[in-house]
Amino acid sequence: MTAHRIHNFNAGPSALPLPVLEKIQASFLNFNDSGMSITEISHRSAKFDAVLNGAIDRVRRLLSLNSDDHVLFIQGGASLQFAMVPMNFLGPNDTADYINTGTWSAKAIKEARIQGKTIQVIASSEDQNFSYVPKTISCTPGARYVHVTSNNTIKGTQFDQFPETFEIPLVADMSSDIFSRPLPMEKFGLIYTGAQKNLGPSGVCMVIVKEAFLETAEQHLPTMLAYKTFAAHNSMYNTPPCFGIYTIDLVLEWIQETFGTLERMAEHNQRKARMLYDVIDGSGFYQATAQKNSRSLMNVTFRLPTEDLEDRFVAEALENGLGGLKGHRSVGGCRASIYNAVPMESVAALAAFMERFEQEKG
Amino acid sequence: MTAHRIHNFNAGPSALPLPVLEKIQASFLNFNDSGMSITEISHRSAKFDAVLNGAIDRVRRLLSLNSDDHVLFIQGGASLQFAMVPMNFLGPNDTADYINTGTWSAKAIKEARIQGKTIQVIASSEDQNFSYVPKTISCTPGARYVHVTSNNTIKGTQFDQFPETFEIPLVADMSSDIFSRPLPMEKFGLIYTGAQKNLGPSGVCMVIVKEAFLETAEQHLPTMLAYKTFAAHNSMYNTPPCFGIYTIDLVLEWIQETFGTLERMAEHNQRKARMLYDVIDGSGFYQATAQKNSRSLMNVTFRLPTEDLEDRFVAEALENGLGGLKGHRSVGGCRASIYNAVPMESVAALAAFMERFEQEKG
Repeated sequence: MTAHRIHNFNAGPSALPLPVLEKIQASFLNFNDSGMSITEISHRSAKFDAVLNGAIDRVRRLLSLNSDDHVLFIQGGASLQFAMVPMNFLGPNDTADYINTGTWSAKAIKEARIQGKTIQVIASSEDQNFSYVPKTISCTPGARYVHVTSNNTIKGTQFDQFPETFEIPLVADMSSDIFSRPLPMEKFGLIYTGAQKNLGPSGVCMVIVKEAFLETAEQHLPTMLAYKTFAAHNSMYNTPPCFGIYTIDLVLEWIQETFGTLERMAEHNQRKARMLYDVIDGSGFYQATAQKNSRSLMNVTFRLPTEDLEDRFVAEALENGLGGLKGHRSVGGCRASIYNAVPMESVAALAAFMERFEQEKG
Repeated sequence: MTAHRIHNFNAGPSALPLPVLEKIQASFLNFNDSGMSITEISHRSAKFDAVLNGAIDRVRRLLSLNSDDHVLFIQGGASLQFAMVPMNFLGPNDTADYINTGTWSAKAIKEARIQGKTIQVIASSEDQNFSYVPKTISCTPGARYVHVTSNNTIKGTQFDQFPETFEIPLVADMSSDIFSRPLPMEKFGLIYTGAQKNLGPSGVCMVIVKEAFLETAEQHLPTMLAYKTFAAHNSMYNTPPCFGIYTIDLVLEWIQETFGTLERMAEHNQRKARMLYDVIDGSGFYQATAQKNSRSLMNVTFRLPTEDLEDRFVAEALENGLGGLKGHRSVGGCRASIYNAVPMESVAALAAFMERFEQEKG
């Protein structure tokens, strides 16, 4: 651990790989011999083209995309995607299915309905306070897509397998678990992912969209709200969020150089999560909030016997260099977000602290 | 000039103040004793609140805003604002006026029309290839707003005074001259400004909107496309572009500490621009493309006798450490963008190079 750095368990924005931060810092006044900062170079320059296309190429390789799949960078976060997906894919006679696994799914559903689109919630885990993810679903015949939130950061749940939708493409919000594991790309029409958890800084959202799915999209929309604009201009119809894309490129490079493949990334993430769930399951003090078969490998959510103990846990953890452990303001409790960039060392330090805290206070 | 840095005349993204870049670099691994990078801290933390509210407060002071004026940070650049303005302010029975001074105005007009809104182009400088800005206009009675692009980066034109619209609020795209001079705030209903010219990195757009004007805005819109969302949540309905807002805060601090007021900033910018226009006007070799009474203080556009000489000018300038002098790809020629952050020293170096180049090649 570099001096003055803490173990960062923030839910997002969240930890970035230290080698990436160091690289940004080292070249911040002179990017790639340009004599300018990455924040000062033209987005129409060859040097930025190399960054943008480099990042896209890494995404293609890591996920084994088809050559005609599109990788786009859009602003506005996943929250704008909640609106753009139905805006682009649901005409007046179209319908789509949504799976409701909590706050983020609910927001996606709300943004479709605000626009007067016809959608159905075909599955929900609201009956058990979103503590699990529905494993089997029944799709509406003719639905344009089935929308799913792959990982719920607030309730600490995650789909380990994606639901079977047969011919209907999945549209997935993967803001909190992209690149944490391999993906069955043949199932998806579109994937969107706000960067600030597994990918880079806030302010850029990556979208992967299949050409066949994109072809069915509406075009007569405000230019900046049409996926086709971003595809036609390689995300440069207007000035893109250059610093964010640059950071994403470095994070992907770090994944490639450190882990090589998403299979190995996934094994690493499983080991990290197991370390914390083992402490929780071996304890009468900590209680996991997600059901065992739906637990997230990215956000480990748990309660302590009292709220007072939870407050003390978070405060004492911070004193011990472990930050960001407070649960989401909407649910309370504790949460350790252990995205790709959170090192094993940080997770081990947390596991040890949890055991110590239980011994002292339990 | 710090070793390896060049004089940066990019049109956008463009030069940032060197002290700002150095500050970002120095604290990049540990922002304000958080033990985390500014790209890793939570947007819901006290430390980020201080950044966001600090930036807003500086905007308020520099422009002497009223206490109920809103300062918002939105993603998507000015290009998304082209669509959001009519989406928010033009109902089915409303109309608005637009002044067309070139590419950016034309895009704003296009985005209103894509949505089927009723607008009129009440003035245009297209008759003389956008080489001037219309000084007097006649507004449509009952128009909700008059839209104006304060500075045209491509043609090098700028409104020195804003047109008289009487009771109708101006909506202004000030992406390329915000904070370059004081503003008659009483004339404006809304100002928007992509950050990557005078304000910060790409990926964040600042919007200033008067409370009385905002009250008239539509609310039944996708959440991320309603100005009222951003006003109600202090730009934090979802995760904002934290790094961009942080950089903006530092740029505004630099303006306050270096110039104090926008009156002094304006004098400085006038001196910088005069230095280049004096070389051009005193030469039979360089020719300004904008008419004298409409010249921009931010983007000095000029031609040389032949395109071949223009290419050599740009290339030799770069060899001499002067970058970004190629005109916009849509018009050719040369352009020196001398936004707030471009120091007098850089402008003086360019003026000297221009004189030398004329002596050798003229």
